[in-house]
Amino acid sequence: MDFFSLVFVTGNANKLREVKEILSQGGYPIEIDSQRLEIPEIQGTTIEVATDKCRRAAELVGGPCITEDTALCYVALKGLPGPYIKHFMVAVGHEGLNAMLDGFPTRAAEAVCTFAYSAGPGAEPVIFEGRTEGTIVPARGPKVFGWDAVFEPLGTGMTYAEMPADQKNKISHRYKALDKLRTYLQ
Amino acid sequence: MDFFSLVFVTGNANKLREVKEILSQGGYPIEIDSQRLEIPEIQGTTIEVATDKCRRAAELVGGPCITEDTALCYVALKGLPGPYIKHFMVAVGHEGLNAMLDGFPTRAAEAVCTFAYSAGPGAEPVIFEGRTEGTIVPARGPKVFGWDAVFEPLGTGMTYAEMPADQKNKISHRYKALDKLRTYLQ
Repeated sequence: MDFFSLVFVTGNANKLREVKEILSQGGYPIEIDSQRLEIPEIQGTTIEVATDKCRRAAELVGGPCITEDTALCYVALKGLPGPYIKHFMVAVGHEGLNAMLDGFPTRAAEAVCTFAYSAGPGAEPVIFEGRTEGTIVPARGPKVFGWDAVFEPLGTGMTYAEMPADQKNKISHRYKALDKLRTYLQ
Repeated sequence: MDFFSLVFVTGNANKLREVKEILSQGGYPIEIDSQRLEIPEIQGTTIEVATDKCRRAAELVGGPCITEDTALCYVALKGLPGPYIKHFMVAVGHEGLNAMLDGFPTRAAEAVCTFAYSAGPGAEPVIFEGRTEGTIVPARGPKVFGWDAVFEPLGTGMTYAEMPADQKNKISHRYKALDKLRTYLQ
């Protein structure tokens, strides 16, 4: 088995491109294939969700694989919606994601990306977490990428959606997690 | 296999007692055993969550079984927190469950109970749903049973927590679902 070739389980072309770019950097580039698999996600903490998904993915892929999960954790809600953010985004949109906080004293939030790597079926997944602190704000910038338009990373004055890709990629929760994964794999 | 003996997968003594009481009524009483099993719940609609859980339970039990899921669906949040309500209850408590609605024009909600029955491993679960409409209000009555103190069923003027058990059991989402299950099984 070639350690430096692995499958990224995703149906998201943007994420695939980003992962390929990052993991091809450094002294030991890693070859990434992708597979779109329907894997049900469990309820639980971000780590529980990511671990379970990667474990199932490795069984289906039959070899080394990585999975990715994104969470948006409101401080006022003690970390929720967290891994359920995609359901909330679909249900209430950018305005609703703001309105949910109107009754609370803080709009602080943390964007959390969790990559999980399994060496293959039966191999316990290893977790790589990236976190970026910020604030939930009324939508600014293009509204095409999930909740990017309502998340303003601390001290930037811009939402994720307003930032040029290279600026976002330097501070983003996804980049931080992916950088840890690359260090581990290389 | 004796159709009239089945396993209720729960670790909750109160729910077990309620289920035993209801299913022992009518012309064909059903014998209920219980098993406490750790079954991860998936993310999804109330029906997807219930179906997946019952399917796994039947594999573990190795025979006929029923499972139960409870959801609290805010109209303002298009049905969320829904099946994730227990995580929100733990995270933000009764006050937080109210505060989440401060930014929205309606505090209407629906309590949803989903029983699922599987005849055994491989048998597709059958779903029995009970729904009770109401409003999210500041906590009144004993705070011991989950979110009962903040849910006021329509037209009653009382929260679930303030109601005598026999009154609650006549209108509750759980009773409605269980009554359908009983009709099906008997």
